[in-house]
Amino acid sequence: MSIDTLVELISDKRNPTVVGLDPRPDYIPKELLDKHYAQQGQCIEALASSYLEFNMGIIDAIADIVPAVKPQVACYEALGPSGMEALRKTMIYAKEHGLFVIADAKRGDIGSTSEAYSAAFLGRTLLPNTEIEYEAFPSDALTINPYLGSDNLNPFLADCDKYGKMVFVLCKTSNKSSMEVQELDVGHRPLYKVIAEQCVYHSRKRVGKSHYSPIGIVVGATHPRDLTQLRRELENIFFLVPGFGAQGGDAGDVRGAFDRYGRGAIINNSRGIICAWQKSDKDFASASRQAALNMKADILSYVQVI
Amino acid sequence: MSIDTLVELISDKRNPTVVGLDPRPDYIPKELLDKHYAQQGQCIEALASSYLEFNMGIIDAIADIVPAVKPQVACYEALGPSGMEALRKTMIYAKEHGLFVIADAKRGDIGSTSEAYSAAFLGRTLLPNTEIEYEAFPSDALTINPYLGSDNLNPFLADCDKYGKMVFVLCKTSNKSSMEVQELDVGHRPLYKVIAEQCVYHSRKRVGKSHYSPIGIVVGATHPRDLTQLRRELENIFFLVPGFGAQGGDAGDVRGAFDRYGRGAIINNSRGIICAWQKSDKDFASASRQAALNMKADILSYVQVI
Repeated sequence: MSIDTLVELISDKRNPTVVGLDPRPDYIPKELLDKHYAQQGQCIEALASSYLEFNMGIIDAIADIVPAVKPQVACYEALGPSGMEALRKTMIYAKEHGLFVIADAKRGDIGSTSEAYSAAFLGRTLLPNTEIEYEAFPSDALTINPYLGSDNLNPFLADCDKYGKMVFVLCKTSNKSSMEVQELDVGHRPLYKVIAEQCVYHSRKRVGKSHYSPIGIVVGATHPRDLTQLRRELENIFFLVPGFGAQGGDAGDVRGAFDRYGRGAIINNSRGIICAWQKSDKDFASASRQAALNMKADILSYVQVI
Repeated sequence: MSIDTLVELISDKRNPTVVGLDPRPDYIPKELLDKHYAQQGQCIEALASSYLEFNMGIIDAIADIVPAVKPQVACYEALGPSGMEALRKTMIYAKEHGLFVIADAKRGDIGSTSEAYSAAFLGRTLLPNTEIEYEAFPSDALTINPYLGSDNLNPFLADCDKYGKMVFVLCKTSNKSSMEVQELDVGHRPLYKVIAEQCVYHSRKRVGKSHYSPIGIVVGATHPRDLTQLRRELENIFFLVPGFGAQGGDAGDVRGAFDRYGRGAIINNSRGIICAWQKSDKDFASASRQAALNMKADILSYVQVI
């Protein structure tokens, strides 16, 4: 799916939010994990199976109200190959439910290596001496780290152009120490603005009918003034906004991320949705649906989405 | 294994080089792949099995002469979960053969996510309600991207301290476009020097008996003058030097990376070793051994390793 499809999905569901599918061992209800321990023994494969069932339950509960999910790849990598299998199946299940899938992997490398990362998430791997193509971790978008420059970006953009996918380049991240590098002064402006300018450069000639380009940026909800200023300056750049909820950002903080049509951004919430069951009498899936509805209402109280 | 062990291994083998285990579909000899196609059918699992057998053959051929291997994680991720299984088994096999394993993953994220990446490569994942710990991708070192600042670095350093591991922070990478970000002028010095200074800061109180710290940096062989200058400025920082061979760097270019004892750096070569069979009459394993011996002799003609 392309940026244009993402903008349509947000508009159709009147909901500019994305649910972060970032399972951790202590986010899984004990009964669910115990069921998989009973089936497979106390092993990493059982934990991975519980992640998959957890994700599927959440996807079932939110697919009609939320346009997108964002699995954090690290959570699955920590469980080894069986975790990566749970990631793959989660992505396939989310796509079957019509959701836009953002792989949060923050990859960045030299060009020949970026080709392999892009094949893993946005493109395909061709089996030698056959015509069989394999999609390893089928995603519509991938987060990208800008430190290696355009050599890194170009292979991902080639797959965006070929398959109608998109990237989100890290610009101003939501964590506290982001300023140590991202706000270094580079010719009277912070580094993250130079990164944003580079994204604008690569966006030229790629802007779709949604008026946004397949090269989005990541700007944290924890920097509301930067969000507002960047929105004014970058008319064709779509924002992925993490940091809402557990990291401290609220609906008032993110309203500056949107254009006057209520477009141009998607706000991520991970723990606030998938861990909602821990503060609720409901089962984990119903609790995640209620939390997702609350977040939607919260954001729509500040932003008119047309 | 720690930085001190890496320095010892280099000294024992008189060889400051690391073999990049970066398999690609077209690097695998046709007979080897056909054997796995015949066993498993034309599927991604067969390609992944051929990667593993290829790596094991190379490890068998070089383990007595080379101190370390560096699997590029992207190559395995492009093959999905079965590729990640081949990565895991490659790492375990390399460690069984006494090799220092550098996972080239260039990970970087907010702190809570870095904890998960660190668990994946340097630390362990604890199975809930048990005392079972799982090492997903067992490595001695991991490459790290600095764009998110110390929030990202700290969880990795905690595992370095706890388990005697190390990290290599991207500083000046070997690719052509590295200057677009890494050489931006930040207060009369390039950005990559600020990153190097941050690594020096975190290295204080962590320098081991080898006189190097567990926080190394990545500096490409394609920047010989920068290598030489950084070596003079950063006495306790160990260098991982990619870009030798196929990317253009040669033994003369990298001599400046070493201190006066011939220590302080390890030079990576991937394609030049693992693809040596394509320009040889030998089988792929024997060709990789010969190429590794040639590279060692080449570097020792410039650098005295004590």
